[in-house]
Amino acid sequence: MNLKEIICEQAKKTKEAALTLAGCSTTLKNNALVAMASALLAQSDFILEENRKDLIAGKNHELSGPLLERLTLTPKRIADMATGMREVAALPDPVGEMFNLRRRPNGMQVGQMRVPIGVIGIIYESRPNVTADVAALCIKSSNGVLLRGGSEAIESNKAIAAVLTHAGTEAGLPPHAITLIETTDRQAIFEMLELSDLIDLIIPRGGAGLIHTVVAHSKIPVMKHDKGLCHTFIDASADLKMAETIAFNAKVQRPATCNAMETLLVHQAIAPSFLPMVGKRLQEAGVGLRVCPRTKALLDAAGIEKSILATEEDFNTEYLDLILSVKIVDDLEGAMAHIAQYGSAHSEAIITEDYSHAMRFINRVDASAVFVNASTRLNDGYQLGLGAEMGISTSRIHARGPMGLEALTCAKFVVLGDGQVRE
Amino acid sequence: MNLKEIICEQAKKTKEAALTLAGCSTTLKNNALVAMASALLAQSDFILEENRKDLIAGKNHELSGPLLERLTLTPKRIADMATGMREVAALPDPVGEMFNLRRRPNGMQVGQMRVPIGVIGIIYESRPNVTADVAALCIKSSNGVLLRGGSEAIESNKAIAAVLTHAGTEAGLPPHAITLIETTDRQAIFEMLELSDLIDLIIPRGGAGLIHTVVAHSKIPVMKHDKGLCHTFIDASADLKMAETIAFNAKVQRPATCNAMETLLVHQAIAPSFLPMVGKRLQEAGVGLRVCPRTKALLDAAGIEKSILATEEDFNTEYLDLILSVKIVDDLEGAMAHIAQYGSAHSEAIITEDYSHAMRFINRVDASAVFVNASTRLNDGYQLGLGAEMGISTSRIHARGPMGLEALTCAKFVVLGDGQVRE
Repeated sequence: MNLKEIICEQAKKTKEAALTLAGCSTTLKNNALVAMASALLAQSDFILEENRKDLIAGKNHELSGPLLERLTLTPKRIADMATGMREVAALPDPVGEMFNLRRRPNGMQVGQMRVPIGVIGIIYESRPNVTADVAALCIKSSNGVLLRGGSEAIESNKAIAAVLTHAGTEAGLPPHAITLIETTDRQAIFEMLELSDLIDLIIPRGGAGLIHTVVAHSKIPVMKHDKGLCHTFIDASADLKMAETIAFNAKVQRPATCNAMETLLVHQAIAPSFLPMVGKRLQEAGVGLRVCPRTKALLDAAGIEKSILATEEDFNTEYLDLILSVKIVDDLEGAMAHIAQYGSAHSEAIITEDYSHAMRFINRVDASAVFVNASTRLNDGYQLGLGAEMGISTSRIHARGPMGLEALTCAKFVVLGDGQVRE
Repeated sequence: MNLKEIICEQAKKTKEAALTLAGCSTTLKNNALVAMASALLAQSDFILEENRKDLIAGKNHELSGPLLERLTLTPKRIADMATGMREVAALPDPVGEMFNLRRRPNGMQVGQMRVPIGVIGIIYESRPNVTADVAALCIKSSNGVLLRGGSEAIESNKAIAAVLTHAGTEAGLPPHAITLIETTDRQAIFEMLELSDLIDLIIPRGGAGLIHTVVAHSKIPVMKHDKGLCHTFIDASADLKMAETIAFNAKVQRPATCNAMETLLVHQAIAPSFLPMVGKRLQEAGVGLRVCPRTKALLDAAGIEKSILATEEDFNTEYLDLILSVKIVDDLEGAMAHIAQYGSAHSEAIITEDYSHAMRFINRVDASAVFVNASTRLNDGYQLGLGAEMGISTSRIHARGPMGLEALTCAKFVVLGDGQVRE
């Protein structure tokens, strides 16, 4: 078989497995997830050994330090994967949930029922723990999953998938419910993206290059995560101590993530008291400040002299690093206009004690998640109470924000009649 | 400006209008819809006059009778359009609805809020009333709409769009909220499908050819309606009188629609009593019967002799006509297997008095809507209580079944905190 045939054959088997999975009970799925979690722990030596092959190959290919770090498995990371699977097992099953059941004038009951999407194709890079996270969410939501990980993690992914599949099959899951594409040929991605009859949804997880390639070539609907150019607006009425804590957290706690703050917007009325305070703390934490002229004057006067003037380009940049753009705005409208112009509709926050401003912000700001008096870093499936996530969607249909189990379902209509016909 | 620039410019203006629309109050939107409905009635002479131009051109181009019929507007049809707009005005506004608000362990409230999708592109054929239906649903859900109707209805669509835009703008809507693409150049469709930065969702409404073209070329997510190859299964325990009424309605009431029954499946235990009864009635109504050998033997023995043996091809065919495939199956499993193999996941019905069979059918059958003891013809936004619809989705993400106002929204996360940060 050539590559096209191999991928097609794998997708067909995954689709058949998905049909079986749709009929599996919640108990069977939960038992399988717990068995898979136990198997990860029991087989962790094997998984670590295979991971070592990837790490050696990665060093030979001169992968960067951060990439190697993401690729590295440890007993702790494997234990976390197992814990994640047990947590997904403990979540309510979304499949079969009925809602909006209402009686129509003609007597029939009309409602909706959550059903699996079908087969989900995941195209991801480096971190091998994604293999287990994604498998758990797909099994729990009765979706078949076709996994295409990065070539740099191929041995780790093969080991994890083999362990999961063996334990899952023992526990009664169809063997091809979790299917890893084992070839490292990049062409496999393009073959996947053609299979609109067999794969129902594609979720790319990785850098901008991967996502762009997938969107440009996919014949299948894609739920995607674009860049996270996130803002925090400190309103005139903000509790300045809270504002400082949140702004610091949003920038510094983990700057390389998509929900980290990239631009701090400050109301002109409190800028003179707030900016020197937060500027000093940020600079001490090693954050490079790219600021508007009014901010620069305030910081310079306060002796915080390492800030540089921001360019238009800066306000359009997702730094993913210890760098922050800062701008003084006239008022809430000015802040919202800046966010509308430069934001990426990912995570946007206002810090305010003004009720009307808080309401206007959550009603009007377009983002996958909007925050009042909280850090944008909280835009995450675990933090928002979904238990787990497939990634954060910045798409505008199906789901926005962290995609949990419910986002892996759709709803069909159910009609319970007693003889109704169309008049 | 060339065509590409014209379409891009129109989409940009629609996007700007959508941003304004997102901030319009429900009252403003409802008042505008009512004003638009009144304007349709007040301007019906003008609309009918413009429609006549399309009809004359259609006759010159030798359009088929059914196409000309769909193209024809009458005072009654215009009044129906106005009534539809008033009905949409009376529906609850989906935008701003908050749900799933729950307090997290760290004290922050997390919920979701329905928001408009943005700009919706509709590509449709012949029926000019779609222009008004779609405009009403998009305005109510605060989406900008870029309309691309068929060239055969261009003068009618221009007239309706002009009347709606004038009345809507007078009532306070942004002027470009409803934007009709006025060129009849087919290339305009392809230009639209490229504008993924300006248009958020494409909904094609029309024949298989149009939908295929749109899906093949769109860079924008598409919600689509594939063929409706719908089944009705008469179970052994069915109330046979009810089964006859429903089967007759599903086939005969309006055979050219997507939710009409194309294949009747009959449990072998009741086939001898049921099939002669329903076969006679269907044949008298002019329905051509394509049947399995067991059915043929039963019908022939009962003196219903015009049925012909069905081919494999017949069970795969959406007749959209007074033709029906009939097959005797061994049991519920046989019926569900047939539906899984030949069905198009559109509308599927079981007629039964058996509780377990009804439950198994609604849980296991994959379709946009599943029916117990009701006609598949009821798969329609009005019938199912949505008030109106943009069409029926057979897609597997975002929405399945009739797409009402809620399907024109997505949900963002809203976090109401009091100082929470990521630990």
